[in-house]
Amino acid sequence: MRMNNPQLDADGRLKHLLSIEGLPKKILNQILDTAESFVGVAEREVKKVPLLRGKTVCNLFFENSTRTRTTFEIAAKRLSADVISLNVNASSQSKGETILDTINNLIAMHADMFVVRHAQSGAAHFIAQHVPAHIHVINAGDGRHSHPTQGLLDVFTIRKYKPDLHNLRVAIVGDILHSRVARSEIHALTTLGVPEIRVIAPKTLLPTQVEKLGVHVYHDINVGLKDVDVVMMLRLQNERMNGAMLPSVQEYFKTYGLTQERLALAKPDAIVMHPGPMNRGVEIDSSVADGRQSVILPQVTYGIAIRMAVMAILAGGQAGGAQ
Amino acid sequence: MRMNNPQLDADGRLKHLLSIEGLPKKILNQILDTAESFVGVAEREVKKVPLLRGKTVCNLFFENSTRTRTTFEIAAKRLSADVISLNVNASSQSKGETILDTINNLIAMHADMFVVRHAQSGAAHFIAQHVPAHIHVINAGDGRHSHPTQGLLDVFTIRKYKPDLHNLRVAIVGDILHSRVARSEIHALTTLGVPEIRVIAPKTLLPTQVEKLGVHVYHDINVGLKDVDVVMMLRLQNERMNGAMLPSVQEYFKTYGLTQERLALAKPDAIVMHPGPMNRGVEIDSSVADGRQSVILPQVTYGIAIRMAVMAILAGGQAGGAQ
Amino acid sequence: MRMNNPQLDADGRLKHLLSIEGLPKKILNQILDTAESFVGVAEREVKKVPLLRGKTVCNLFFENSTRTRTTFEIAAKRLSADVISLNVNASSQSKGETILDTINNLIAMHADMFVVRHAQSGAAHFIAQHVPAHIHVINAGDGRHSHPTQGLLDVFTIRKYKPDLHNLRVAIVGDILHSRVARSEIHALTTLGVPEIRVIAPKTLLPTQVEKLGVHVYHDINVGLKDVDVVMMLRLQNERMNGAMLPSVQEYFKTYGLTQERLALAKPDAIVMHPGPMNRGVEIDSSVADGRQSVILPQVTYGIAIRMAVMAILAGGQAGGAQ
Repeated sequence: MRMNNPQLDADGRLKHLLSIEGLPKKILNQILDTAESFVGVAEREVKKVPLLRGKTVCNLFFENSTRTRTTFEIAAKRLSADVISLNVNASSQSKGETILDTINNLIAMHADMFVVRHAQSGAAHFIAQHVPAHIHVINAGDGRHSHPTQGLLDVFTIRKYKPDLHNLRVAIVGDILHSRVARSEIHALTTLGVPEIRVIAPKTLLPTQVEKLGVHVYHDINVGLKDVDVVMMLRLQNERMNGAMLPSVQEYFKTYGLTQERLALAKPDAIVMHPGPMNRGVEIDSSVADGRQSVILPQVTYGIAIRMAVMAILAGGQAGGAQ
Repeated sequence: MRMNNPQLDADGRLKHLLSIEGLPKKILNQILDTAESFVGVAEREVKKVPLLRGKTVCNLFFENSTRTRTTFEIAAKRLSADVISLNVNASSQSKGETILDTINNLIAMHADMFVVRHAQSGAAHFIAQHVPAHIHVINAGDGRHSHPTQGLLDVFTIRKYKPDLHNLRVAIVGDILHSRVARSEIHALTTLGVPEIRVIAPKTLLPTQVEKLGVHVYHDINVGLKDVDVVMMLRLQNERMNGAMLPSVQEYFKTYGLTQERLALAKPDAIVMHPGPMNRGVEIDSSVADGRQSVILPQVTYGIAIRMAVMAILAGGQAGGAQ
Repeated sequence: MRMNNPQLDADGRLKHLLSIEGLPKKILNQILDTAESFVGVAEREVKKVPLLRGKTVCNLFFENSTRTRTTFEIAAKRLSADVISLNVNASSQSKGETILDTINNLIAMHADMFVVRHAQSGAAHFIAQHVPAHIHVINAGDGRHSHPTQGLLDVFTIRKYKPDLHNLRVAIVGDILHSRVARSEIHALTTLGVPEIRVIAPKTLLPTQVEKLGVHVYHDINVGLKDVDVVMMLRLQNERMNGAMLPSVQEYFKTYGLTQERLALAKPDAIVMHPGPMNRGVEIDSSVADGRQSVILPQVTYGIAIRMAVMAILAGGQAGGAQ
């Protein structure tokens, strides 16, 4: 089985980060534990460690995402790497070069790590299959498929605020069907021993047979939020609105938007999460987003630590990483 | 009064640089004196000091300006900061995220300083009002309102060539009405004790009641330039031409363009300044722009030193800054 | 003669890299030998030397080329320079500033080196003529005219695989007429003593009187490839296809495409080169591009070493460069 897992090497060590599915519990915990040490780095006077000094990290964005690119750029620079950002639409692709030729050229320039964002599912896997053993690939989002560092930072955030994962009730609310992260998170939470995961959404925004993932399905948010410890809101893509899937933004907020009243149904110390960017007044009320239970900004902070941890582990230097 | 000044902290120290208006003379001189020490850094073999090492400076450009972005990027890199440049139109703004959400996300990533350029007046002030105490905001131009580092570098340049500010006659020529810098400069020069400031422009390019700023108004450049020590030309925005404001480029040059003949009316050792980019043959003749009295390129050089000084002061490290 | 050579200083040392034409054999060999030492740097754990620390390298791209910009950015960062990348179309040029004003502004900011890419022939020469003595200009491609680092990396690659240049037969195949590099390479190879250079192309893709460069002309690739040691394929610009110059992509591949069968006509240990990006199935078959005789990816690797060498020599620090 290990031989079929493209993310691990023959000794079971992390080689690429492509999706949370397929990561053994041991590796998940290694990433989370390493990230703990990098949380401290960001709070220092000099927010920099020399772990990736002299290494070249390529941000390879076939799809524009300033937000995600920025987090990886900051993480790589804090590890002292040289960062090269390539917006690939604007370059060789238009000259008819294949993705693999682009990748092979960058490897020939002694790039060490690729952070790949692509609109098509499986793009990062495809690249990972074709690179030599010393090159590492991180999936920064491929279509609807996977966005593993987002999933990891979410799990890290939950663990920070609710360390006893074996006693948690987590609700994921919103567009499960099109979410890059929902499926990964369900997998990660299950792997780490979270006993009860609920998904709350209209039928049109749920994948068929979602129950097979081991989750409980709710269509009524007022029932689904009852006594949960964690409320993970998902972003509603505006483009879903203009179809048959959903009636209107106002209607969605009325039925599934997270308000103070609804949040009161959860446990009093429940935390509220959102992957950003938020549509205030669509999936979440501003008073909740900015409220005392919100851990939305800590998620962003931990996202840097998670990305630093993944890069450090892949580069093989996690041991002395953040000392 | 200090409590109403968003640029200073409770102890009267510089916290943000938003506009020259509101900067006490002491702070103005602190910036100018600190910049002196950075002029030397740029002339060294290794043009780098470790003052901002491990700090993250975010260039947040809601409006594109390669020229201004480059000066701040060079200044920050010479201070050893990590620089993240965000062209915000192309990113989250289009996904409906608010400016404050963007800012708060970057703060959550432990950004230390924001260099903000925005088409709307007051954008940098607005951001500065909402950031926590350890975050610093530099206004890199907001609408017609303010562009304080430009004003500071102009004053610095004048002081370099004409140290006796108490005996100067300064003329500002051109589009005072739409200039981001003219008003700031008038304020700074007045604060530093320059006794006579003249503005030279057609009525259509002057704000109403400009005399209240303490300046002398001239509509005839041949009269206004008489015996001045400093001639500050302003850039004429091409878009002003196609309206009722001005007849034509040729006509403007004939009436207000700085030629050798007109410059001869000023003192023999008068200096000529321009904030760039120049419209040669519109507001200034090439022979003057490249002539022996021009200090237009030294302005650019000092601009780097001023930006380094502002960043160093804000980061609290100006003392040992350029040693 | 030396006085007319804008690339050399009064002592015959490299001052700018504008074209391979005009580089004496001694300088060519100095660049190639310095590059040898940088090949090793890229294979180290920490791929960085402090040669350009505190220097500011400006990538000045008047024409977009992510691929070329990336190679110079990587090379400069491995030399520890601060790199400023300017896409000049998007900036001051649109505000009517002249190229020289842009350059002079960057020099005033204490830029040390310009890497210039421009659609017009002679742009880098023009800039080099106008900068002060301590500023260095590298031509990164100007129109059809010159792209000297590409020519140098090609010669370097040949020397690596076929060190005995005095006994070589080299064939250059394809669009000689529009190639920025073909002319430079012919010049460099001749200077370094390669006795036989063949050009293989249809008449419509050959310059008039190409024989005057000292090359042998072949229109039939099956004759021209006979017993050569090096096959240098050129990229076919797609835009050439839609005119009278060439019938179709299929037709071109049938007549001039490099296939396994044709390559078998060359010497058994002949190497295959291509400047990239490749049009697989147009000028070269994929099996050849990825075959055991292909040195196309080593060319890319050596390209970084060549660019590091040129920058190090220009900065005057080549001596202790890669130690």
